[in-house]
Amino acid sequence: MSATDEATLRAELLIEALPYIQRFRGAVVVVKYGGNAMVDPALAATFAEDIVLMRSVGIRPVVVHGGGPQISELMERLGKVPEFRDGQRVTDAETVDIARMVLVGKVNREIVGAINVHGPLAVGVSGEDAGLIVAEARDPELGFVGDVESVRPAILERLLAEELIPVVSTIGADETGQAYNINADAVAGAIAQALAAEKVIYLTDVEGLLADVADAASLISHIDAPALQARIDAGSLTGGMIPKINACLHAVGGGVGSAHLLDGRVPHVLLLELFSDAGIGTMITPETGS
Amino acid sequence: MSATDEATLRAELLIEALPYIQRFRGAVVVVKYGGNAMVDPALAATFAEDIVLMRSVGIRPVVVHGGGPQISELMERLGKVPEFRDGQRVTDAETVDIARMVLVGKVNREIVGAINVHGPLAVGVSGEDAGLIVAEARDPELGFVGDVESVRPAILERLLAEELIPVVSTIGADETGQAYNINADAVAGAIAQALAAEKVIYLTDVEGLLADVADAASLISHIDAPALQARIDAGSLTGGMIPKINACLHAVGGGVGSAHLLDGRVPHVLLLELFSDAGIGTMITPETGS
Amino acid sequence: MSATDEATLRAELLIEALPYIQRFRGAVVVVKYGGNAMVDPALAATFAEDIVLMRSVGIRPVVVHGGGPQISELMERLGKVPEFRDGQRVTDAETVDIARMVLVGKVNREIVGAINVHGPLAVGVSGEDAGLIVAEARDPELGFVGDVESVRPAILERLLAEELIPVVSTIGADETGQAYNINADAVAGAIAQALAAEKVIYLTDVEGLLADVADAASLISHIDAPALQARIDAGSLTGGMIPKINACLHAVGGGVGSAHLLDGRVPHVLLLELFSDAGIGTMITPETGS
Amino acid sequence: MSATDEATLRAELLIEALPYIQRFRGAVVVVKYGGNAMVDPALAATFAEDIVLMRSVGIRPVVVHGGGPQISELMERLGKVPEFRDGQRVTDAETVDIARMVLVGKVNREIVGAINVHGPLAVGVSGEDAGLIVAEARDPELGFVGDVESVRPAILERLLAEELIPVVSTIGADETGQAYNINADAVAGAIAQALAAEKVIYLTDVEGLLADVADAASLISHIDAPALQARIDAGSLTGGMIPKINACLHAVGGGVGSAHLLDGRVPHVLLLELFSDAGIGTMITPETGS
Amino acid sequence: MSATDEATLRAELLIEALPYIQRFRGAVVVVKYGGNAMVDPALAATFAEDIVLMRSVGIRPVVVHGGGPQISELMERLGKVPEFRDGQRVTDAETVDIARMVLVGKVNREIVGAINVHGPLAVGVSGEDAGLIVAEARDPELGFVGDVESVRPAILERLLAEELIPVVSTIGADETGQAYNINADAVAGAIAQALAAEKVIYLTDVEGLLADVADAASLISHIDAPALQARIDAGSLTGGMIPKINACLHAVGGGVGSAHLLDGRVPHVLLLELFSDAGIGTMITPETGS
Amino acid sequence: MSATDEATLRAELLIEALPYIQRFRGAVVVVKYGGNAMVDPALAATFAEDIVLMRSVGIRPVVVHGGGPQISELMERLGKVPEFRDGQRVTDAETVDIARMVLVGKVNREIVGAINVHGPLAVGVSGEDAGLIVAEARDPELGFVGDVESVRPAILERLLAEELIPVVSTIGADETGQAYNINADAVAGAIAQALAAEKVIYLTDVEGLLADVADAASLISHIDAPALQARIDAGSLTGGMIPKINACLHAVGGGVGSAHLLDGRVPHVLLLELFSDAGIGTMITPETGS
Repeated sequence: MSATDEATLRAELLIEALPYIQRFRGAVVVVKYGGNAMVDPALAATFAEDIVLMRSVGIRPVVVHGGGPQISELMERLGKVPEFRDGQRVTDAETVDIARMVLVGKVNREIVGAINVHGPLAVGVSGEDAGLIVAEARDPELGFVGDVESVRPAILERLLAEELIPVVSTIGADETGQAYNINADAVAGAIAQALAAEKVIYLTDVEGLLADVADAASLISHIDAPALQARIDAGSLTGGMIPKINACLHAVGGGVGSAHLLDGRVPHVLLLELFSDAGIGTMITPETGS
Repeated sequence: MSATDEATLRAELLIEALPYIQRFRGAVVVVKYGGNAMVDPALAATFAEDIVLMRSVGIRPVVVHGGGPQISELMERLGKVPEFRDGQRVTDAETVDIARMVLVGKVNREIVGAINVHGPLAVGVSGEDAGLIVAEARDPELGFVGDVESVRPAILERLLAEELIPVVSTIGADETGQAYNINADAVAGAIAQALAAEKVIYLTDVEGLLADVADAASLISHIDAPALQARIDAGSLTGGMIPKINACLHAVGGGVGSAHLLDGRVPHVLLLELFSDAGIGTMITPETGS
Repeated sequence: MSATDEATLRAELLIEALPYIQRFRGAVVVVKYGGNAMVDPALAATFAEDIVLMRSVGIRPVVVHGGGPQISELMERLGKVPEFRDGQRVTDAETVDIARMVLVGKVNREIVGAINVHGPLAVGVSGEDAGLIVAEARDPELGFVGDVESVRPAILERLLAEELIPVVSTIGADETGQAYNINADAVAGAIAQALAAEKVIYLTDVEGLLADVADAASLISHIDAPALQARIDAGSLTGGMIPKINACLHAVGGGVGSAHLLDGRVPHVLLLELFSDAGIGTMITPETGS
Repeated sequence: MSATDEATLRAELLIEALPYIQRFRGAVVVVKYGGNAMVDPALAATFAEDIVLMRSVGIRPVVVHGGGPQISELMERLGKVPEFRDGQRVTDAETVDIARMVLVGKVNREIVGAINVHGPLAVGVSGEDAGLIVAEARDPELGFVGDVESVRPAILERLLAEELIPVVSTIGADETGQAYNINADAVAGAIAQALAAEKVIYLTDVEGLLADVADAASLISHIDAPALQARIDAGSLTGGMIPKINACLHAVGGGVGSAHLLDGRVPHVLLLELFSDAGIGTMITPETGS
Repeated sequence: MSATDEATLRAELLIEALPYIQRFRGAVVVVKYGGNAMVDPALAATFAEDIVLMRSVGIRPVVVHGGGPQISELMERLGKVPEFRDGQRVTDAETVDIARMVLVGKVNREIVGAINVHGPLAVGVSGEDAGLIVAEARDPELGFVGDVESVRPAILERLLAEELIPVVSTIGADETGQAYNINADAVAGAIAQALAAEKVIYLTDVEGLLADVADAASLISHIDAPALQARIDAGSLTGGMIPKINACLHAVGGGVGSAHLLDGRVPHVLLLELFSDAGIGTMITPETGS
Repeated sequence: MSATDEATLRAELLIEALPYIQRFRGAVVVVKYGGNAMVDPALAATFAEDIVLMRSVGIRPVVVHGGGPQISELMERLGKVPEFRDGQRVTDAETVDIARMVLVGKVNREIVGAINVHGPLAVGVSGEDAGLIVAEARDPELGFVGDVESVRPAILERLLAEELIPVVSTIGADETGQAYNINADAVAGAIAQALAAEKVIYLTDVEGLLADVADAASLISHIDAPALQARIDAGSLTGGMIPKINACLHAVGGGVGSAHLLDGRVPHVLLLELFSDAGIGTMITPETGS
């Protein structure tokens, strides 16, 4: 392909993205970032590019991240054995300290750094900053594992108004100042709801929601909340996706336009979802049938 | 190419445009629109798309248009014989009336209409509106042919601040309210200067400036103002491009970042110039050598 | 009268206008301009003066104009025979093009020019600009004759906020960008309603509404909407005024403070209506009896 | 004259005021109010009307008033004998207290009251409010007679920005909070300068400046500052007008557009000066010859 | 106590005030100033300090003052015998003039002066300024004694927005511009209500409300509105406090957070009330029991 | 002391702080936080109180913190041996990662947490956020030890404008995104300069600067920059204070009003410095002698 042909193709593809760009101009999009997309350096770089491009065409992205494996890794280096109960990490005082160091001081920093290669755009925020996330203990036996009690989105709104990109670590604090580690999927949904986001997008390590877990071809590309709830109630969806799905249902039930489960292993999957009709992952909407 | 591959390619090409998008964010770009790009319906539609995309990625475009052939056509239908002296239309009171009807009431409308298919974005403006273009007579023998005496850019600045796209017809008025027909190339340069534009782009029916008019391969892709002036003084550039070139020199001499002569017959030539490194047309800059 | 006496008289008359000036400060007044007031050069000049004075004392005028006779004139010069069905112009593609050229490119320009002799105050706007007037076809047999489907007043509000005077041509567009010619009386009422105007004023070629068309002394100086509707229903009002009267009823029914039918042949009739108690023309109000 | 003819005349006279209204739109005009215009109830009412009309047509008036005779009157009622040295009131602690009561609590109130009959427009301000006038003692022998040391115009600018009419009493305070009575002519000039006023107007009980005090026909209608200074230096101007003239010279020397000495006994003299070409009183400008 | 110990104590006491400072940040507090606190120079100085400190820590104070004794004093010096009917001053035209001079021209000035020793902070306002207090006659026999008909708080809101301290004299005007003397307690309550104040505080010459007037130890430190009304209805509260108490009930009934009766003879009583838990005076709240 | 006496004393001490409160209203004060004040929980709590009180009285505090000992501690727990060259930590890739985790994820969090017990006021910021601190390598042998190349204070200005309290970790990044650990004393000075701060205050573990290190009574309470430089040049100041002193000299040389070395072991030492005349620590000013 000649240089001119390539340029022409690029122009045409830009133009094809135009209706999508116009539709999402000014919209808040919350992206839950995690899994392979976060640990593979090449994917991490394309993720940063996608976020910067979203901002460049007028979308207002908010990144929310977790970091369970990184927390376990530091715990182990410090001689602590991670302990889980029903899939949740038992979190004593030292563990929440370690979690906070890893999330706020390492994972968040790496995301901010990757974005800011493109300009002074990203700002790290922890849930304790300006009282963003008020937490409450989930269960005394789990220690400092918290649930989102409420969200004060003012600090995010200010950063968005300045065209900055907030990157949120999911540490919350209760009224006494005690820190809690909070599930990032739940935080992403709660923040999306508090910001009246257009979309909340979860990057996962699977293609999306499968009607039949055993059949990769059974991807559900669109399902509305009642139908999804019915599948859960019927027990046809189980396992690790349940918390994410519940966060999605909570978000669309609270005013978010749509929730998405995307395969974070696909390069530029955010752009594919936002700027094309190619059926990517699973979209969950408030009402329309699948 | 599969749907997914296409989508991926689109994502990658979008990302390649990212540095250009960031560079021109917020910049004013004045586009002189005319020639084939205006009369060929397919090109007119891609022109409108390009202008809307420019706005969508944060550029603030201003369109300036002429319409000589359309004026001649209506004159002929009304039984008037167009008369030219040294390439300039002799413009009596009836002719300036016809020119105004055609430019403001027909050509401008068609451009506004083509853009507004994409949303309520464009607003037609004539040089008489809010005193935008103050004109003075060029030569009593030519009648109501005017030169730009001064530009009051306030109305354009207001529309740009509202993220609207001004489309400017090149009728000016003197202090008594008398209308004049003004050369659109000169108006585009004067408006670019008054708005401290980043770029002024002229869409023409040629590939750009040729070092040797007889040799299409002699395209000058970049030349600075002194070198260009030297070529004019040496007489190596002549003919129809001279007024456009003078407008370019005037603009870059008055603070505009660069002036461009592009081939309006190439679809999406505006995007090619703005969002790729592909050498398109001729760029004229204030100082650096070619 | 000595110079001093004259000056004193002027001062006293200014002062007598003071309560009216204070009452209408900041109010939006939509003026439908047409008929003799538009074609008689002396009346056109006093109309422009009135509009500028209104703005100078804090009123925010919007001018809406038609131009049927001027359209017919150009059609005839171009060899087209105007054709009417039930008083409405059959409007094929070429006719709407001609109407647009005449309204936007000629009549609008002349009004803007007459006002701008007093300063850079007026800005021409067509219903297509920034999606001001969304039109829909009235009747397939009439071609591109449109009705007002909706009004997006944002562009007018912005211009008024900048203390500019919008002059509106009554071309609208549907969602596909197709242009329509729309009745100016209806547009004036719809714009007055969309702007929550204090008054909408129709300049006509008669003294106002006559209780008995045969008796010039039977002028109705004030009537409320129910009483006016009753007269229409009773068939006592007929003929050319009906569309104007319906636009008046629609406007006051939609929140406009009052609608006025004034005799545009009287110099400075706008000032007489606004700044004195002299009974001028017919005022239509939402509720109070005549 | 019929009602219609009268109305038409009024409309025409309004229109004749139009160029003046446009010229002074937005301009600050400081009016020193005193003498007969203040004590004659009919003149006081027309003065209030003039000030309100000025505001209604976009001028931003500031009223500065004195009140020497009223101070003397209350002193006498309280059994104090006013004492003057070189025309200046000897002002002990009780006297400055009385002066303040009379100026701020009586004269200012009456002006505010007369204006506010037309709406909630006027706000009384004393030089002590928000530190408006910083005073310094003129001469220990005179007691609390002050000169203007500096002006903090912020409070006036805020009121003007809210379209309110400040009415200023000429009491100032030094840094310790001690009150001083200050000459109102000087204060008017200093405030006009601090506000970069277009005009400062002194209402007096004479027709203006006479070239020959004995000859009422020798009124100087226009004189520039150097020529006026020359007349003072030559001793051809003497007596009570000297302080006023010096305030005028100071003001135009400090950036005020022009200073005016008008005959406050003429009804609506402010409007005559502002809205007609009739030669009223004496205008003093920075530079041009008489 | 060593200098360092003193400094440390000061720091600790500042810190103890911190929760109160945070609670009242941004709150409007209306203070009715009168009695001994106004006539004792030392108390007047500490009052000014308190007001300035309140502003310095983010409270927005409004001072409302009376001045009955000062009015009587000037009346007597002018040979007029004050006459009271049912405790209310019979106010003829001359008396309202005197009251206005004393309140606006003397008492208000002294308060403004005392505050402005600390900087250009206070601005005197009379109820006539910008139509702040619209008055109506209470009783023809009392002459120009007025009641508050309505409050236009715009002028106060503007001054507060500029971080200025309004000092309000309680003269009102009716629509004809006639001045009235109005009870300052009532004005303080009405202004507190119009500004949706957090608190209205009355400085009095007693410790607060006593359950048993004969027993100084029976101070009621907190009572809610229904309980207070019950005591009035039962006749257990009588005498001079009734008008103040009614103003308090009116204010808390109209949305003010709480009303306070404080002993103005105690230095810095405002700070004691605002910044400590020490039970000072009587607090009246809308609902909770004592 | 009775409750009332205590309250009165508190009121009086508040009032004594008034002139200091007024002087520093709106001023930016940068506080370098470290040493004992940071590790002693009681001192950490009083530090937080002081910062919140500063904000409550209108000061705009910015906290900058280090954390060398905490970094060494985690390194040791992770089996890394801290290595210093000329008092500077040799910082390999893993060490800068650990430093960042400790500073941003632990120390910063604890400060934010302690402040936010008083409300949602503090926001943690790292030098990488929105490009706050651009770093450059100091010396290849030291690895990722950085110097401040430039400061982009926009993010701090935005947070201060929202009345938030920024808490800054001293990690910077170069243009490639590589993180560096930077000396906190230097960062505090550079940020103070970039914000045109009124003061930069260093909390240390000594009383201040001693003229004779061996004599605790030789505290220098005030010294200007030239005199301080002279002492350095004369070699009479040596040891650990030199970097702090150089940061102070740099700050006052770059426009900061004054720099202070305070004893962070004294409770509320910030308030003592700001709100009393008690000579606390050492003040360094641009020019005046001691």
